[in-house]
Amino acid sequence: MSPNLQPSPNDPSPEALDRFFRQTRPVDLALWLARLPANEAWQHLAAMSPQQRAEIFGEFSPDDQNALATLIPPQELVGIVALMQSDDRVDLFQRLGPDEQRRLIRDLPPEVSRDIERLAIHAEESAGAIMTSDYAVLDGAMTAAEAIEALRRQAGGSETIYRSYVVDETGRLTGSVRLHALILASEHTLVRDLMGQDPVSVSIDTDQEEVARRIAHYDLLAIPVVDGDGRLVGIVTHDDAADVMQDEATEDFQKISHVLPFKQTMRQAGIGMLYSRRIVWLALLVIGNLFSGAGIAHFEDMILAYVSLVFFLPLLIDSSGNAGSQSATLMVRALATGDVEMKDWRDLILRELAVAAALGATMAAVVFPVGAWRGGVDVALTVGLTMFIVVLIGSLVGMSLPFLLSRLRLDPATASGPLVTTIADATGVVIYFSIATMILKA
Amino acid sequence: MSPNLQPSPNDPSPEALDRFFRQTRPVDLALWLARLPANEAWQHLAAMSPQQRAEIFGEFSPDDQNALATLIPPQELVGIVALMQSDDRVDLFQRLGPDEQRRLIRDLPPEVSRDIERLAIHAEESAGAIMTSDYAVLDGAMTAAEAIEALRRQAGGSETIYRSYVVDETGRLTGSVRLHALILASEHTLVRDLMGQDPVSVSIDTDQEEVARRIAHYDLLAIPVVDGDGRLVGIVTHDDAADVMQDEATEDFQKISHVLPFKQTMRQAGIGMLYSRRIVWLALLVIGNLFSGAGIAHFEDMILAYVSLVFFLPLLIDSSGNAGSQSATLMVRALATGDVEMKDWRDLILRELAVAAALGATMAAVVFPVGAWRGGVDVALTVGLTMFIVVLIGSLVGMSLPFLLSRLRLDPATASGPLVTTIADATGVVIYFSIATMILKA
Repeated sequence: MSPNLQPSPNDPSPEALDRFFRQTRPVDLALWLARLPANEAWQHLAAMSPQQRAEIFGEFSPDDQNALATLIPPQELVGIVALMQSDDRVDLFQRLGPDEQRRLIRDLPPEVSRDIERLAIHAEESAGAIMTSDYAVLDGAMTAAEAIEALRRQAGGSETIYRSYVVDETGRLTGSVRLHALILASEHTLVRDLMGQDPVSVSIDTDQEEVARRIAHYDLLAIPVVDGDGRLVGIVTHDDAADVMQDEATEDFQKISHVLPFKQTMRQAGIGMLYSRRIVWLALLVIGNLFSGAGIAHFEDMILAYVSLVFFLPLLIDSSGNAGSQSATLMVRALATGDVEMKDWRDLILRELAVAAALGATMAAVVFPVGAWRGGVDVALTVGLTMFIVVLIGSLVGMSLPFLLSRLRLDPATASGPLVTTIADATGVVIYFSIATMILKA
Repeated sequence: MSPNLQPSPNDPSPEALDRFFRQTRPVDLALWLARLPANEAWQHLAAMSPQQRAEIFGEFSPDDQNALATLIPPQELVGIVALMQSDDRVDLFQRLGPDEQRRLIRDLPPEVSRDIERLAIHAEESAGAIMTSDYAVLDGAMTAAEAIEALRRQAGGSETIYRSYVVDETGRLTGSVRLHALILASEHTLVRDLMGQDPVSVSIDTDQEEVARRIAHYDLLAIPVVDGDGRLVGIVTHDDAADVMQDEATEDFQKISHVLPFKQTMRQAGIGMLYSRRIVWLALLVIGNLFSGAGIAHFEDMILAYVSLVFFLPLLIDSSGNAGSQSATLMVRALATGDVEMKDWRDLILRELAVAAALGATMAAVVFPVGAWRGGVDVALTVGLTMFIVVLIGSLVGMSLPFLLSRLRLDPATASGPLVTTIADATGVVIYFSIATMILKA
C-alpha cells in the first residue's frame, strides 16, 4: 500500500543508489525492489548487510518472497531466514516445497529449526499461526533495575520490549509489566509488585479475527498466547492484528459480492485465478434465476393479456433486491465487527419491519403515478401494492439470512447482494403476477 | 465489541460490586454501565476515583457519553473532561450544545480549554481532528539519562512514551527516538545521536484514512502530525488508526450497498435514521429501472410474438449485474486499501476483459441448453450470445466505474452493487431484445 512515498533514484550512480538505500525505509525498499526483475532485485539485496537484507525480505509480499526464495542460492536463503522475525519466517517456510523445507530445517541453526517446527503446526488463521516467539520474559522476583538489565539483553530478539511477560517456574503466564512502569519505579521495586495481574490473553486455537478484535477492544500493543495449561507460548502484535482486520474485511467484501475468497492483491491476481473465484457463484445463481423464469412462464397468459406489466418487472424485482442487499450488507458488517450478536436478532427484526414498511410505502408512492400513467388505476394499484410487499420481503430476507447462516455455522457474509437479489427476484415475480391476477382479472 | 468478556456480578452485595469494579477493565466496565439506566450508571461512576471515572467515561460510545453528559452535575463533568485523553475530550466537546461548550470552556483549567480550542478547529476526518496532544517531547542535546528523566516527568500526560519526538527551538520536528534506544544506550549518549532522522509524519489536513494507512504501512505505534511550517502539533496513535480503518471499512460496506454513511452502531441506530439513510438511493435507482422498463416497452411487439423470451429476462440481466458487482466490489476494496491506484487502470482493464470473456463464455454455455429446451436453436443462440455480451459489459462497467468516480473526485465506493446492477439491467434489456430481433426475425 501507499507505494512511492520515496522517489526512486533517477541518478543511476552507485553513490546515489547507496544514498537511496540508506535513506529509504525497508518496507518502501521492498516495494521498489519488487518492481524489478527478480535477479536484479537479488543483486541489490546481495550487496546489503545480512540484517538489512532479512528486514527487507520480510516486507516482500508472499508471492515475491517465493519468487526470490527459488532464485537465491540456498546458503544465502538460510542466512536470511535465520534473521527474519519468527512469525514472518514460518509463513515463508509453509509456502515452500517439501524439498526446500527439508533443506532449510537441515541447514538452519537448530534453535531456529525448532522454532519453525513449533510454530508451523498451528491451524491456519488461529492465534498460533500468527503469533511470534520474539517476546521478552521476566521473573516476578526481579527488581526493576534487574528487569531493565534483562530487557537490554533480550531487546535484539524481541518484537516489543514495551510490554514484558512474567511467567512462573512452569512457564505459566502470571502477569505483564510495561516498560513504562519499570522506568518510573524505584530501582528496588519487585517486578511482581509492578505487574498487572490476570492479563488479557488468547489461547493457541483462538480464531485470528477474535485475536484482532480483542487487541482493538483493549487497545493493546500485543496480546499473549497461552497453551491449554496456561503456559505462555507466543505473542501477537498490534500491527499483525491490524493486517488481520484489513484482510478479514477484504475477505468479507469478496464474499458479499459472491467472489470466493483469495489472498493475492488485485494487482497480482491472475486471469485463471480470478475466473475460478468468480464463476462458481455466478453459475450457481443461474439456478435461482431459472426459478424466476419458471415463475414468469407460469404467468405467460397474463403477460400476453397485459404486456405493459413487463415494463415494471425490472423495477419491482430490482427494488426488492436493492432493499434486501442494503439490509444484508449492514447485518453482515455488524456481525463481523461484533457490533451485533445472534441474540439481538429478535430486537432487530422488529425494527427492520418498521424501517422496511416505511421504505416500501415510500417506494409504492413513487411508482403509483408511473403505474397510473402507463396503465390506469388498476395497474397503479397492482404495481404499488407489489412494490410495498416486495420491499418488505426483500428487507426481511436480507436482514435474516446472515443470522440464519451464522446459526447454521456458515459464514454470514455469503448472505449478500447477489444471493439476496436472486431470492428476491424469484419471490417478486410470483407476488407481482399473483397480485396482477387478483386485481386485473377481478 | 466482544462485550461480556467479564461476567457481570450476580451477587449484588457492595463487596462483590467493589471487587467487580476493581477487577474489570475500564472498557468492559463502560460496556456494563452503558446497559444500565443513565442515572444508575452515574451513581456507580460517582463512587469511583476521578481518574477511573474519566477513564471509563472515555470508553463510552459517543451517544452514551452525550446521554451522561447532560445528566451529570456540571462541576462533575468539568472534573471528568479535564482528566480525559485530549483526543477523546475534544470529540465529546464537539458533540455538546453551544451552552454546554461555553460553560465547559469557562470552567475548565485554562490550559485544558486552550487545548480543546486548538484541537477543535480541524476539519472532520483529518489528522488534526483525530490527533492527541498527549505526547512526549525531547531535546536533541539531552543525554540518554537526562531524556529518561524527562520522560519520567512527562509520562503521566503522554499516551505513549515508547516513541518520543525531538523538536528544535522553533518547535520543528527533527526526529524521533525509541525508549528502547534510550535504555540500550550508554547514559551519556546524546539524544540526537540516537534518533532516527526524517521521521514519517503527516500534516494536519491529511485525510484520516491516509493517516491510518501510513501507520499500517510502516507498522508504527504513533505518527507525528506537523503544521505547514513543519512544527509538531500532535500525534495519532495506532489504536485510533485501527478504529479509523474499521470505521472506513464499515462506511465502504454501507456505500456499496447504497446506504448513505452513518456512524451509529447497528444496535443503536433508530428507525427514522435508518429509513433516511436507505431511501435516497432506493428511490434514485427507480429512475434507472424506468430506463429498463422503457427498453421493454419499446420491444412489446417482440415480446408478444415470442413471449418465451421473458423467461430468460431475469436470468440475463441478473447475471450481468452479478458479474458487474463482483468487479466493482473487488475494485472498490483494492482502491480503498491502496492495493491498486488510478494509473493501474490500463493494465487491469485488459485483464478484466480476459476474465470477463471467460466468464461470459462459460455462462453462455450454461444457458444454451436451457434456451434450446425452451425455444429451439434460435432462442438458444439468442440467449447464449446475449449472455456472453451482457456479462462482458457488466464486468467492464463494474470494473471501470470506481476508477471513473475516483477520477471525478467522487467516492469510488458509490460504484457498487445496486448502481452497477441498474446500469447492467438497462443495457441488458436493450441488448437482449436487439439480438432477439436480429436472430428471430431474420
